[in-house]
Amino acid sequence: MKKYVYLFGNGKAEGNSSMKNLLGGKGANLAEMANLGIPVPPGFTISTEVCTYYYKNKTYPEGLKDEVLNALKNVEKMVEKKFGDEKNPLLVSVRSGARVSMPGMMDTVLNLGINDTTVNGLAALTNNERFAWDSYRRFIQMFGNVVMGIDSSKFEHILSGLKKEKGVEYDTELDADDLKKLVDLYKEFVRKEKGEDFPQDPYKQMWMAIDAVFKSWDNERAIAYRRMHQISDDWGTAVNVVAMVYGNMGDNSGTGVAFTRDPATGEKKFFGEFLINAQGEDVVAGIRTPQAITLKDSRKWAKEHNISEEERRTKYPSLEEYMPEVYKQLVEIYQKLEKHYRDMQDLEFTIERGKLWMLQTRTGKRTGFAAVNIAIDMVDEGLITEKEALLRIEGEHLTQLMNPIFDPEDVKKAKGEGRIVAKGLPAGPGAATGKIVFYAEDAEAWAEKGEKVILVRDETSPEDIKGMDSAEGILTARGGMTSHAAVVARGMGKTCVVGCGALDIDYDKKEMKVSGKVLKEGDWISIDGNTGEVIQGKVKVKPSEVVQVMIEKTLDPENAPVYKKFEKLMKWADKYRKLGVRTNADTPKDSGVARKFGAEGIGLCRTEHMFFEGERIQAVREMILAENLENRKKALEKILPMQKEDFIGIFKAMAGFPVTIRLLDPPLHEFLPHEEEDIKELSNEMGVDFETLKSKVESLKEMNPMLGHRGCRLGISYPEITEMQTRAIIEAALEVKKQGIEVKPEIMIPLVGHYKEFELQKDIVDRTAKEVMEERGETIDYLVGTMIELPRAALTADEIAQNAEFFSFGTNDLTQTTFGLSRDDAGKFLPEYIEKGIYSVDPFVAIDQKGLGELMKIGVEKGRSTRKDIKIGICGEHGGEPSSVKFCHRIGFNYVSCSPYRVPIARLSAAQAVIEEEN
Amino acid sequence: MKKYVYLFGNGKAEGNSSMKNLLGGKGANLAEMANLGIPVPPGFTISTEVCTYYYKNKTYPEGLKDEVLNALKNVEKMVEKKFGDEKNPLLVSVRSGARVSMPGMMDTVLNLGINDTTVNGLAALTNNERFAWDSYRRFIQMFGNVVMGIDSSKFEHILSGLKKEKGVEYDTELDADDLKKLVDLYKEFVRKEKGEDFPQDPYKQMWMAIDAVFKSWDNERAIAYRRMHQISDDWGTAVNVVAMVYGNMGDNSGTGVAFTRDPATGEKKFFGEFLINAQGEDVVAGIRTPQAITLKDSRKWAKEHNISEEERRTKYPSLEEYMPEVYKQLVEIYQKLEKHYRDMQDLEFTIERGKLWMLQTRTGKRTGFAAVNIAIDMVDEGLITEKEALLRIEGEHLTQLMNPIFDPEDVKKAKGEGRIVAKGLPAGPGAATGKIVFYAEDAEAWAEKGEKVILVRDETSPEDIKGMDSAEGILTARGGMTSHAAVVARGMGKTCVVGCGALDIDYDKKEMKVSGKVLKEGDWISIDGNTGEVIQGKVKVKPSEVVQVMIEKTLDPENAPVYKKFEKLMKWADKYRKLGVRTNADTPKDSGVARKFGAEGIGLCRTEHMFFEGERIQAVREMILAENLENRKKALEKILPMQKEDFIGIFKAMAGFPVTIRLLDPPLHEFLPHEEEDIKELSNEMGVDFETLKSKVESLKEMNPMLGHRGCRLGISYPEITEMQTRAIIEAALEVKKQGIEVKPEIMIPLVGHYKEFELQKDIVDRTAKEVMEERGETIDYLVGTMIELPRAALTADEIAQNAEFFSFGTNDLTQTTFGLSRDDAGKFLPEYIEKGIYSVDPFVAIDQKGLGELMKIGVEKGRSTRKDIKIGICGEHGGEPSSVKFCHRIGFNYVSCSPYRVPIARLSAAQAVIEEEN
Repeated sequence: MKKYVYLFGNGKAEGNSSMKNLLGGKGANLAEMANLGIPVPPGFTISTEVCTYYYKNKTYPEGLKDEVLNALKNVEKMVEKKFGDEKNPLLVSVRSGARVSMPGMMDTVLNLGINDTTVNGLAALTNNERFAWDSYRRFIQMFGNVVMGIDSSKFEHILSGLKKEKGVEYDTELDADDLKKLVDLYKEFVRKEKGEDFPQDPYKQMWMAIDAVFKSWDNERAIAYRRMHQISDDWGTAVNVVAMVYGNMGDNSGTGVAFTRDPATGEKKFFGEFLINAQGEDVVAGIRTPQAITLKDSRKWAKEHNISEEERRTKYPSLEEYMPEVYKQLVEIYQKLEKHYRDMQDLEFTIERGKLWMLQTRTGKRTGFAAVNIAIDMVDEGLITEKEALLRIEGEHLTQLMNPIFDPEDVKKAKGEGRIVAKGLPAGPGAATGKIVFYAEDAEAWAEKGEKVILVRDETSPEDIKGMDSAEGILTARGGMTSHAAVVARGMGKTCVVGCGALDIDYDKKEMKVSGKVLKEGDWISIDGNTGEVIQGKVKVKPSEVVQVMIEKTLDPENAPVYKKFEKLMKWADKYRKLGVRTNADTPKDSGVARKFGAEGIGLCRTEHMFFEGERIQAVREMILAENLENRKKALEKILPMQKEDFIGIFKAMAGFPVTIRLLDPPLHEFLPHEEEDIKELSNEMGVDFETLKSKVESLKEMNPMLGHRGCRLGISYPEITEMQTRAIIEAALEVKKQGIEVKPEIMIPLVGHYKEFELQKDIVDRTAKEVMEERGETIDYLVGTMIELPRAALTADEIAQNAEFFSFGTNDLTQTTFGLSRDDAGKFLPEYIEKGIYSVDPFVAIDQKGLGELMKIGVEKGRSTRKDIKIGICGEHGGEPSSVKFCHRIGFNYVSCSPYRVPIARLSAAQAVIEEEN
Repeated sequence: MKKYVYLFGNGKAEGNSSMKNLLGGKGANLAEMANLGIPVPPGFTISTEVCTYYYKNKTYPEGLKDEVLNALKNVEKMVEKKFGDEKNPLLVSVRSGARVSMPGMMDTVLNLGINDTTVNGLAALTNNERFAWDSYRRFIQMFGNVVMGIDSSKFEHILSGLKKEKGVEYDTELDADDLKKLVDLYKEFVRKEKGEDFPQDPYKQMWMAIDAVFKSWDNERAIAYRRMHQISDDWGTAVNVVAMVYGNMGDNSGTGVAFTRDPATGEKKFFGEFLINAQGEDVVAGIRTPQAITLKDSRKWAKEHNISEEERRTKYPSLEEYMPEVYKQLVEIYQKLEKHYRDMQDLEFTIERGKLWMLQTRTGKRTGFAAVNIAIDMVDEGLITEKEALLRIEGEHLTQLMNPIFDPEDVKKAKGEGRIVAKGLPAGPGAATGKIVFYAEDAEAWAEKGEKVILVRDETSPEDIKGMDSAEGILTARGGMTSHAAVVARGMGKTCVVGCGALDIDYDKKEMKVSGKVLKEGDWISIDGNTGEVIQGKVKVKPSEVVQVMIEKTLDPENAPVYKKFEKLMKWADKYRKLGVRTNADTPKDSGVARKFGAEGIGLCRTEHMFFEGERIQAVREMILAENLENRKKALEKILPMQKEDFIGIFKAMAGFPVTIRLLDPPLHEFLPHEEEDIKELSNEMGVDFETLKSKVESLKEMNPMLGHRGCRLGISYPEITEMQTRAIIEAALEVKKQGIEVKPEIMIPLVGHYKEFELQKDIVDRTAKEVMEERGETIDYLVGTMIELPRAALTADEIAQNAEFFSFGTNDLTQTTFGLSRDDAGKFLPEYIEKGIYSVDPFVAIDQKGLGELMKIGVEKGRSTRKDIKIGICGEHGGEPSSVKFCHRIGFNYVSCSPYRVPIARLSAAQAVIEEEN
């Protein structure tokens, strides 16, 4: 028969730390600690398989009851107490514990086993009647709430009433008799609420609590948390039944939490807090001020709070002073645990009448700074290898190191003042403060006057680019993580919060309503691109050390310890990774930044982003409005030298590295105004009849522009555009080459769905390139390849690869078409989809490996079946997202390409992909 | 070495009729006739492989020249003449000949081998100097045009000049000396035009002609024709070099064409025309009135043209009278050929000085009526089997039998009067005449007054449905074969012409400009849904016999010979087919029609099509505008009884057959007005504040509605809609069942992309169905399945099939997403794509088997891997298109579903799929 229950205690256990999937993190670590001889209260773990079984079959597996009862008997033996015994009762806690920590999301019941008779045994045993009755009333309250579903505040209400009656302020002022009375009141209340008595049978209590914990796996909170952290619904939780130990048995008892290193900075020092005469929940609830564990921290704390050494030592002593023996034991244990787990640990402990019990150990959560410091320190200490260190760093850790941040203290202050007015999606990491402007032109104008501004829009459009570039940050009311604002902002490394639905913008009045406040143009506002918070007024901000050294060159690397560790990590990453890492960049400036961050070329240069500046948009509009080929060619001739200049700049910035240039992609109507007013203005500007212009704008309108006349379809309709762009690229390349700089142009045809589209466009490119080279009497090597961004392209990649020299997966559009999901419109229901657990993660953020990934695999296999060495990369937004980068590695890509500020993350993820594969 | 040249003549040949791919149709049939002992002029065929080689390598394969010269020597031997011999010259024709006939699309050169010396030989040989010089001048003219690229009219100009000079009217009035002079003038002109002499060397002439014929495979005409008829560019053409025979050697010579049965009606009678003393081109050019071959036809013709028997016999005798021996021989040959080929043949022959030569035989093109008649007759005659008969009928043949048609005579008249004003895409087959109206409401109002109207719009929208239903036909300026107008019209069996870009509609003035004319509201117009022609004024029209018998029941089947044959054919089809055939129908009326046409259930019932009528749209709008769940439920309660009534009607009409009902699919904004004026009106009607209403309309607007908040996404956001619709379906089903009628409801969830979407919706459906059944104390079996209309659904069909009980491929949307192509917008560039040969056929018309088909196969394989007997069908527009139906059969579908009028075509195609698989 299958084993469902695992015992631990008294220096041995049936489980161990490798069994997290089966026993949950808490259960596995309790077993591991028991095996290590560390004092843990005896108990047993009911495995996650029971949870899965329970959800599948709506009942427990056969034999479970017997196994549990048997385990309970063993625990009774170890602690020499008896469950339900009126003289010497065993009390237990019943706790959830999933494969990964889901703090506070699921249910816990403490003090279980107490009832009208065992309470007396507990009183006698502990020689503390008040403690026993307090435990009983706590139990009814907790059990009533968690297991029986009674609103907790109703118990609080009864408690308040009694305190009022007694004329006291604190719970602790109630004596044993008061608490006895309270228990009666509670039991009476439960009977009234539920129509049945509060259960007295300890076994009944236990099974009810186990049921409740398993059920709590599917409460709303837990589901939401799983969505956020991409935890599978199928994992289930384990249940831990553990003998109670008490930190609230008087002044020789206590409870605390500790970290083996500083989780904020990573500094190698023991760090933690404890409370005397308290239960674990008291520390978490923050009712009393906790005391430091080490003397050093205690003194530091006292200094910060203007507390005299005298007062500190008497009222708030450190554990080191208060219980030196326990402290010594705790130090030994933490060192043992860190060495054993080879990572920073987060510990929970209880001291019962001077005896230390460890209740939990787990790998501690940490900031990006701490993560990097700890990883590198541990390599230096010989505790872990470089490869292990790399696996310990998450992409978001690096982001934290790179982005400017708000001063946390200042944010706390703002919160206290009620200035956190809304929360949106954190689309562009960073922290930005500025004056509100509602128009891109205003952003530009104000910035020129030296003002710092935040551009606030319902959403942004390509016309807003310069304004966005001028702004400190961008805040939008609509759009998701890959909306225009989000994509462009990340590309610019600009702080950005999008989809902040609480904003109600009135463009005419140049103001917005939010959280009942009216914020006007010129008012200060701050946006946090790491949290999505929108804060009224200013918040202090600073650029990261990494950026100061690498990009701004304003800081000497020698004085930049964070930068040095960052750089060390990147070197390790480069040593192991196999994927190339390129960047998506449209300007020499962006190219330069990306290169400083380690980009090995450009994977996507969007030519149309150059079309909006200055005279260009004028020429582009002339091109669109041209009534015949001749006029269209004239307009294109005006654009040619400007495009060429751009390419020259980019080629130089990327000297020696390949530069993939995508030909014109967006539908032409994006370059024309749509409002009557703007059309009128343009008609005056261009000397074109208003009606003619309007009807042109109308005729270009599309029902579904995403699926419309764009990409290579433009080049098929207007081959002269492809010719002009090819000419600009090849002329630029030849000129740069002449200066002795190595140039590797790669021309990319967008939105190909049929191999003949590609052939037709490649013919034009090759013919034009040949012409230019013949004119100049010089040659340059170049490649012609295609985006794979339509399902049909992936499905027919074998045909397309007959002529295409490289593939670049455009996973933004490929996600849109594969899911049938417009990223411009999905904002309305995508959050609901995530919440309801349909998508575990936004498919525009991380590659949907099951669906989209299948299509990508087909594309790779078919492409290589025709051209076995075809170069394959990705240039969608996913190219800088860790799980996506790893997926690209696994399915055999040659490189990923991402926005400049994501390059280090891609390098790291690429290395992790290799290491994970080896494991 | 590979063989490239195939000889024929003198009763034997190296090729035969099975070698069409290699020798082209013409060459293979000439060889076959030679083998059959039928007199064909000797010659040889250069295979299509040479063409393919030529296009790939820009040169001829090694050894070809020798093979050709060798073959020519053999021909010389057979005809006992010599190529280029001044005394006894052999002249040849050089003709194209592809795998399938491409009439007039490629080049032909006759009389080749003639020059300044051989012309004399020809004169002596034929004892006819005029004939020889006339042949020479014809040759220069033809060769000059076809091979040397000189404008034909320029030769005509010289010829006219000479006739003027001579004071004569007809070519035949020029004598030998005149023609000699003409030859000199022609040669001089060629020298001037091309800077070189007209080639005198017969071998040079021959190779130049062969080059030209191969090159003509890629002329614009030929490419366009291939697009239209889905002929692969890779097939190439063969070249036939054949000894010339002359029908213009005097009154004992002649030339003609004939059909072994009537190609218009299928009647079993020999039918054809000939000219005395003429070459083949003269018959085609229609310069002289041709004479009938049989006496019977000749007399009939004379009667129709008021020509006396006397005049007929002397001036226009039949071949039967004029050359009774030749006629007898021709009759023997045609009977032999028809029996041999077992199909109606289209023949070309020449009589040279009383000797009959067959120049061509091929399977004759025929109308739908003829196709059905011939196929059935031939089965009766024991010539072919039922299966072969089925293979001989094309879908479009059936359409012709079913649709009302214009009286061809009346159309001819209109053409003569210049009333054919434009041509669009023939989207809904049929013929409709009515008065022009420009608004759907007007169509309704006018129709109620008993007027016949044609609804003319830029494009139609769902709001126009009733107007469309009221109209005789629909004509739109925009949109393609699957635009709203086209889809709905076909569903209604309504005549429809779309994408007629020549129309310039002015809604305000209620008029349109077209071809320089102004047509106003109320003017008569006729549209031909078979040809796309738009005809000013009325044209006579009549309903088909099939419809009169099957649908209108106004004609006794006994008096309907066409219907009887149609029905016979359908019975045969049903005997062999394995695919089920269902229909897409939204009303009891459509369901009834489809059932009469043989539909075995409904594959797609679009519930939202019921949402636009009368009070419903009001309730639907209330539902959309509801600010909370309660109000939304109230509005839904109003819709419930109406939906139920619809379903009751449909279930009854489809008694005993399954009915697949798709839950609400379109985005909600489709149910609201978008123009300021209309919003104002609605706000008054509904008593809703204008601004509120407007902002609701705005908030529902989407950038890409096709990829927006629609399909099951609505049901996820508003589960109450799914509940209401399920309730309506189950309540209706129970009520119909109570009446003793068998009901098989199948509930279909649209736009599923993730199995969890399906699960969530299925849970609601099952829960609601259970509720309804419990309320009523009765039960009904039903299925819940899903559309596969997103790439991700196909790619994850294994997951979806865990719960889905059937799949229905929605190939309209699946094509849109797989290609990234909006069918609302594709009209702008799709024609160019077809023209440039990117798509060989509109992917919205026929399934793109290479791309979309791959995805469909994945969907079927993955679906069946989880649920091996899952029922799989198609409900996209492709379900009634023959090649698509066959594809669905091949990849293992259970059924196809199409619009009612396509049901017979689907039945036929399904049978053909089985038979083709056996072959």
